[in-house]
Amino acid sequence: MITSIENRRTIRKYKEKDVSEVLLNELLTTAARAATMGNIQLYSVVVTREKEIKKALSPLHFGQPMVENAPIVLTFCADFHRFNQWCELRNANPGYNNFLSFINAASDTLLFVQNFTTLAEDAGLGTCYLGTTVYNPKGIIDILHLPKLVFPIATITVGWPDESPERTDRLPLNGIIHNDTYKDYSKEDIDSIYAYKESLPENLNFVEINKKENLAQVFTDCRYTKADNESMSEGLLEALKQQGFL
Amino acid sequence: MITSIENRRTIRKYKEKDVSEVLLNELLTTAARAATMGNIQLYSVVVTREKEIKKALSPLHFGQPMVENAPIVLTFCADFHRFNQWCELRNANPGYNNFLSFINAASDTLLFVQNFTTLAEDAGLGTCYLGTTVYNPKGIIDILHLPKLVFPIATITVGWPDESPERTDRLPLNGIIHNDTYKDYSKEDIDSIYAYKESLPENLNFVEINKKENLAQVFTDCRYTKADNESMSEGLLEALKQQGFL
Repeated sequence: MITSIENRRTIRKYKEKDVSEVLLNELLTTAARAATMGNIQLYSVVVTREKEIKKALSPLHFGQPMVENAPIVLTFCADFHRFNQWCELRNANPGYNNFLSFINAASDTLLFVQNFTTLAEDAGLGTCYLGTTVYNPKGIIDILHLPKLVFPIATITVGWPDESPERTDRLPLNGIIHNDTYKDYSKEDIDSIYAYKESLPENLNFVEINKKENLAQVFTDCRYTKADNESMSEGLLEALKQQGFL
Repeated sequence: MITSIENRRTIRKYKEKDVSEVLLNELLTTAARAATMGNIQLYSVVVTREKEIKKALSPLHFGQPMVENAPIVLTFCADFHRFNQWCELRNANPGYNNFLSFINAASDTLLFVQNFTTLAEDAGLGTCYLGTTVYNPKGIIDILHLPKLVFPIATITVGWPDESPERTDRLPLNGIIHNDTYKDYSKEDIDSIYAYKESLPENLNFVEINKKENLAQVFTDCRYTKADNESMSEGLLEALKQQGFL
């Protein structure tokens, strides 16, 4: 499995072959061994195989084709609703409609997600992590009928790989490690940390086709713009209020 | 590695034996293969081996003895600062001082954390996930000198295991899976999902020593109270503002 973690690639194209419920359930059961706050398991997973629901979810993920083409779409949700219901049925007084509880549940969820991904990939499946889940949470909440204290955190498309893309680059480890306390980066540090990424032919090509001066501008002006981030932050905070976490 | 995920336990007691920098760096390098937004790697890890710094961190983690006793304390941080600096040095206009960007970075961080944990445990190390990191973020930010756009998300203590605790229980899988859309829980569902947990001798013992009616009340009245959650939510939101994410 070290090898499967070392060699992982995001897989966006899948064979038409189905992923059995038995296999999926085995993977999710083992994934749930991940650490969880107070052993409460503050998550749920919505397993979508139905074509019509995938079609409805697709535009919320900006039409990325994996959503409609993957045999399974998994929406992992931070979930304090189940625990809250248990408390209410036991004459206990739950106090989880707040921001800390959202962060606790989101953390539980993401540890579970990554454990699932590791196990799925080790079993030969391909996965794609869709960060778009938190870009349009309200639409996803509506389609999946998520009650209060349930919030969509991550979507993973799963299927048998029908492509073998190149492994992507990573920053040098010394760029992300700090010893004992955080040491701020000098200009020279930044130049050195990003040098390899900036030199890659595919990134030079992105700069050219987007008519930008450099790769950083491709990110700030095209991919993840200030205006988009600010407007989606508003939607995300509104959705947190709507679901009872703010 | 499936076996190591299946058999994982939280390890809170460690041998005095050190964990080498070479091994730690290998594990972190491989862990960084986890999916990351736009391949940006929105995280940093502060590696604390220094006794004095562990001692300073300890009360912020409510004095849990692992912080002082583990050979290594890792504080995983959501980090948009490095990327932001790169953008500024490249005459690009970054727009990541907002809530969506915090959630993106926190997600990247937690996927990295879980990948690291899996690899560390597969190498025979023991780990403990400290959720307390988000309970007292301001103190941790001060001690580790975290600049704006860097936020502590998770702390992992790491060392060679010096205990072999029992594996803890988990909810039945049908309690966390929803097919196609979220199906709300009936009273009978909740009773059935929590029956095994409520029947465990250690949990019955918690109910007794805390003089409560049932296990849910142990959670709501002793472990994770409404008053604590609300006051720590305030501190968490203030820290997010201070770090520039709100």
